[in-house]
Formats: sequence, structure tokens, C-alpha cells
Amino acid sequence: MIKKILKFGGTSVGTIERIQHVANIIKKEHDLGNKIIAIVSAMSGKTNELIKMSQDVSEDFDKRELDVLLASGEQVTCALLAGALRKLNIKSKSWLNWQIPILTEGDNTNSRIINVNTNKIEEYLNEGVAVIPGFQGISKDRNITTIGRGGSDATAVAFAKLFRADECIIYTDVDGVYSTDPNKIPVAKKIDKISYDEMLELSSVGAKVMQSSAVQTAMMYDIPLEVKSTFTDRKGTKIFNQENIDYSKSVTGVAYSKDDAKLTLLGVEDKPGVAANIFEPLNNAQINVDMVIQNISADHKKTDITFTIKRDELLKTKKILENNQSINYNEITHNEKVAKVSIVGAGMVSTPGVTYKMFKGLAEENINILAISTSEIKISVIIDEKNTLNAVKKLHTIFDLD
Amino acid sequence: MIKKILKFGGTSVGTIERIQHVANIIKKEHDLGNKIIAIVSAMSGKTNELIKMSQDVSEDFDKRELDVLLASGEQVTCALLAGALRKLNIKSKSWLNWQIPILTEGDNTNSRIINVNTNKIEEYLNEGVAVIPGFQGISKDRNITTIGRGGSDATAVAFAKLFRADECIIYTDVDGVYSTDPNKIPVAKKIDKISYDEMLELSSVGAKVMQSSAVQTAMMYDIPLEVKSTFTDRKGTKIFNQENIDYSKSVTGVAYSKDDAKLTLLGVEDKPGVAANIFEPLNNAQINVDMVIQNISADHKKTDITFTIKRDELLKTKKILENNQSINYNEITHNEKVAKVSIVGAGMVSTPGVTYKMFKGLAEENINILAISTSEIKISVIIDEKNTLNAVKKLHTIFDLD
Repeated sequence: MIKKILKFGGTSVGTIERIQHVANIIKKEHDLGNKIIAIVSAMSGKTNELIKMSQDVSEDFDKRELDVLLASGEQVTCALLAGALRKLNIKSKSWLNWQIPILTEGDNTNSRIINVNTNKIEEYLNEGVAVIPGFQGISKDRNITTIGRGGSDATAVAFAKLFRADECIIYTDVDGVYSTDPNKIPVAKKIDKISYDEMLELSSVGAKVMQSSAVQTAMMYDIPLEVKSTFTDRKGTKIFNQENIDYSKSVTGVAYSKDDAKLTLLGVEDKPGVAANIFEPLNNAQINVDMVIQNISADHKKTDITFTIKRDELLKTKKILENNQSINYNEITHNEKVAKVSIVGAGMVSTPGVTYKMFKGLAEENINILAISTSEIKISVIIDEKNTLNAVKKLHTIFDLD
Repeated sequence: MIKKILKFGGTSVGTIERIQHVANIIKKEHDLGNKIIAIVSAMSGKTNELIKMSQDVSEDFDKRELDVLLASGEQVTCALLAGALRKLNIKSKSWLNWQIPILTEGDNTNSRIINVNTNKIEEYLNEGVAVIPGFQGISKDRNITTIGRGGSDATAVAFAKLFRADECIIYTDVDGVYSTDPNKIPVAKKIDKISYDEMLELSSVGAKVMQSSAVQTAMMYDIPLEVKSTFTDRKGTKIFNQENIDYSKSVTGVAYSKDDAKLTLLGVEDKPGVAANIFEPLNNAQINVDMVIQNISADHKKTDITFTIKRDELLKTKKILENNQSINYNEITHNEKVAKVSIVGAGMVSTPGVTYKMFKGLAEENINILAISTSEIKISVIIDEKNTLNAVKKLHTIFDLD
């Protein structure tokens, strides 16, 4: 008998028929003799509908009450799923945040789970399936809290850790993690196994399958995950510590981001504190800076700093830079239609020539590289946006992902 | 500074605009320096929508989970109203069933409030408005429970009692209690003051303004109520103990019921236990028997028993009577299109001739009386359904209610 956490996202429980389908998935697992904790999101569209209602009341709707409002979404799914399981003669019970309780800390709408009382549920698992609302908890002073959008993944990982679950399966509306976007690149392939790091890099640059902070938590506690589709029987993607993965390929996937813009400050003074002076006001204005590239300057006097931002923040960013009295530079240049294309792979660190191969491939397609940034498991280049799909296809092919 | 319970029904909080309107009503009361507890229903249509979802899952949906499901409706209204009040700079907070707690006993979907922890809310009323979900509570073993349809009225009355409120106002979509149905009889007049008994009699025969069991509870603890419209500034109807009402009129209102049928058992043996033998199997089949009339039999051997039921239960009822081996009678007759018309008034007991006046009025309209039943504050007659409106109009006029 093993203990499984099964998490079902919003589209997986989006209609009564789908909730009944989820109940059947759970029944199969239960009939195998497994102990099951099911964690559910609000029905798809519900959270947005509730947020819209709150905004119709006030654009600055009170955050404590917003959490009370939003928490109702998962409560509805919990009750319906527990009812659907009982209809299948599976003993089952919904457990609300305060009934467990799921203890959180931090601000309303942005809390973190810090503890879950496992005793009562652990005992109940001997009898039936526990159905738990994702995305929410209660604070020490007994207010309802939520843990940010997509937070049901975080609930699943926290439960997997605290209940010492044998498996934690994230059921969603895709088959798993793909080597690149399957909607745009038809030769994209599902990845069977991936490391937490790779998953994070792929997800942060576009392959949005799981919430990143939940993957980080799983990595921190070494909790194996599996992402799979609610709607097919196909195998999903297993997410492990990279030590458990045998890398036959240097590159696991190709990711890309859209709607980026690039800014370059030419002739910046090369002295300590300059970068901080540039980025502090951007941070204060909540501008999300992605890639930052600075080369070693030849004469240690002047250097160039390039960074990327979302395109719709370009004008605002330029204005802040121009009004910034604490920095000196010769000129600001920008390119408002760029894309970031990245190859990701934990195997690349042990494979020589990956970087060269990437650059050569792009050159063969006559794609000019505007900037380069690398980490241990990722190489990203900035290119003209119009070349994005060509670049992704080429890289997907030359790294044997097709 | 006085303490007020303000209860807002489903139509009063049916849209965001209406919730904002309710927030303004509360603000006015709060700005006068009153302590306010607001009790809210689910937004109109919401409870039915949730019930429909549960029925789509299973016609025999688990009752514990149904309560978890339904309770989400008032939770949503609470959060939205508390947020709307904060938008008006009124300090306010939603208090969910378990946060108070509201303790209930009895079965799921049919519980009763037995206690409310008043301490924390009492303290909070010094700072702000407490917003409370009607219709729900938690059981001793910390399951969510609901207290039956229309149960928000019961929550309001329980809070009025336990918080020793100075006023308990039931805001709804009608102006108050009318002397008869204003939709059918245009001369119907709003009643300024009414006793609990009269309210119960009027409500049980069609003038559905408040849930009857909530009125009974208010009567039991002598809690004065007021029913008024959320949508106008007009005065509502105050509901008191009848000692506090000065009766200038013998009759307060005329009520009528629709879709009734009448059954008569002719020649029933007149001996102890016969009535029980007749009605026990009907009760077991959950047939709702309304008026029962039995005359003293002249010879103490045979008597006739007449009773009314809802028309759509006529066939079922006849069948049960015919299969009932424990009773003897000569014949069963029925009339499937009858109506019950009642005059209600706590003043009638001290006014001679009310009964005669009623019968004379009906005779003037050539309306034949099929059966008569009287109580201290009500006289009901069964007539052919086609005469209903004529009868109501005539009685409304002759008892000076126009």
C-alpha cells in the first residue's frame, strides 16, 4: 500500500463531467489499495470570475476579504469531488483549510504553507479518500489565506512532503513537459524524465506546466513529481533530482520567450555600484528585468550593459533611465522586437561543444545573435523576434530532439 | 448607541450593484453610531445553481458534502459585502461559521443553531461592522452544516437573541407584510404592525415574507422584528408580541392558498384512534395534510372527515386511503379544485360577529362554502378555486382593509 498525492488543476475539474472523470481516476488508484489524498483547484474560470466580482466592487479590494472570496472556489470543487467519489461507493470526505488545518504565514493573497496537521487525515486515509482544497490555508490568527495564483501545485508539494507521500502526481491539461512548445513546433517531443533545474529553466522561459515555486520546493526536499494529463492514459513526465537521470542527450529542451525588448546602455562608467544604480529605480517601478549582460571592458573605464524587459514596459523603462541622475553613459539604444531562445539541459555541462554547436546552427540559418547569456544548464541568446520559430526548429533538430 | 441585526436576503445581494447598495444602507446605520451585525444570504440564484451541480453529480448527493458546497454561497456574499464596506471606509470583516463559531445540532441540511460565541464579535463591534453568513454553522464535530432553505432568517433571529440586539431588521424584496397578495389584489395595503401569530398565519397561507420557523423563534423569545424593502426607503412591517399592538381592526389580512384539493371520508366509524389510523399512513408517505375538519356526529356512531392536501398529491392520497385496511367508511368523495381563503387577525377574538360577517360576505357573492375551520386568530373556508379572487376581494373590502 503506497500513499499518493493526486493534484487536479482547474481544467481537470472544469465541469461536472470532468469532476466525475477525476473521480474515476481516483477510484482506479484507490481500488489498487493505495492511500489517496486528492488536491483540487477551483473549476476553470471560477477564480477569474471571483476576482472580476471583487474588482467590480473595488479596484483596491481588501486582501483579507479577497482570500475569503477566492477560497470558496476550491471549497466547491472539494465538495463536488467528494460527492462524486461517494456516488462511486468510495468513502471520501472534503477537508477544508480550517478543518485540517493548513497553517500559513505571510500576507493575504501571498502566503506560504508552513505546516499541515497530518494526524487526522493520516488516520482517515485508512478508511477513505481525503479531498483537499489547493491554493489556501489559514493564518496563525485564523484568517483564510491564499498562496498565490497556481498555488494548488504548492499545496500538493507541501502535502507530499509532510505526509511523506510515495508519489505526487500533478494532473493537468497537457501530457507532460515537452522539448519545446508542441503547439508551434510539431516535432516537439514529450520528455519522459527531467531534473528540477531543467524544469525550472524550461518553465521560466515559456513551457508553463507547473508553478515554478512549487518545483523549487520539490527540489529543496527532493520530492519526485510526475506531470501527466487528466484526459489521456499516456505516461507523463517524471521530475527528479538530476542525479537520478541518465543523460543520453546534452540538451533536454528548447524554450523561447515572446514580447521581449532589449535595451543597451553604451559607454557606462565601469566602476562598482553602477549596475545597482541602473537597476534599483527599475526595481522600484516593478519593471521585470530578465537577462542582463555586461562584458568585461577593455580599458576598465567604459563598458556596455544590455538587458531585456517585456516589450510593453520599454517606454517606461527608457524614461526612468533618462531621468536617472546617478548614472553616466554615452547613449541608449534599443531593439523593441527581440526574442530569447534558450537550450536547456543538465547534460550540457559534461558535453563539450554545445555552445559552439548552438551558434553554428543559428549561423547556418543566417540568424544574427544580439546577446548571449549562459548558466550551468542553459544557454540563452537574444535574436530578432522574426527569427524565433526558425531558431527553435533548427536547435530542436541539431540537438536530436525531433 | 444601539445594536442592530440587519439581514439581507438573496435578491437584496443579487448583483455587485445591489451589494454596494446594501453597503450604503449599512453605512447610514453605522454613521448614526449604531453597532451593526449584517447577516447575508447567498446571491439570488446561487443556492439553486449549487444544488443543480450536486444533482448533476448524483441525485442522492451526500448531505455532508452538500452543506460544504452550499455554504460557499454565503461566504462569497460575506467577502464581497465586507469589501464593499471597506471601499466606503467603514471598518468591516467577514466572520465565517467556524471563525465565530456558530454551533448547530441536528442532521446535515437540516440543523438548528444552538449557540453562537458572542465574545469576539461583541468586541469587534466597537471597531467595525461584522458580516455573517446566514443559513449555516458548524456541528460539534466541526462539520459544516446548513439550517434549511430560507435559514438566513433563522440566523438573524438567533443572533438577535444571543447578542441581545435592540433591533432585528429583515431586508427583503417586498415592502413588508400586506393585507393580502398585492400582485393579485391591487387594493392590498401594507400592514404597519402585526403580531407573530398573525404573521405566521398569513405566511403559512401564502404571504411568504419570512421563514415561519424564524418567526416562531422570535415569538418564543419575544424578539421584535421588522420586515422592510432593501430597494425603497419606505417604512416596513413591525412584528411584535400582540400585547404591544393596538387593534383598531378586527381583521389584519386575507390570505389564500392555491392548488389545493379536498377529500372527504363519509361514514367513518366515530371511535378513538380512527383519525390516527387515517393520517398515519399519509404522514409516512410525506403527504402534507393541511386543514382537517371533523364534525360531532349526531349518533356517535358514524362521522365525516374532510381534509385538504396539495392537488398534485390527490391520486396518491386516494390510493393510500383505499388500501388502508385499518379504517372503515362508506365512501370517499373529492373536489380537486378548491382554495383555502382565510381572514387573519389577533383582534377578531374580541370582536363579535366576525365569523357571521365573513359568511354573509361570501353569500352575497354567491360563493358556496365547502368547509370551515377556525382558530383564535384565523377563520379559514374552503371554496371552489374559481371563486378565490372574488372571495379575497370581498373579504378585503368588508373588513376595511382596502
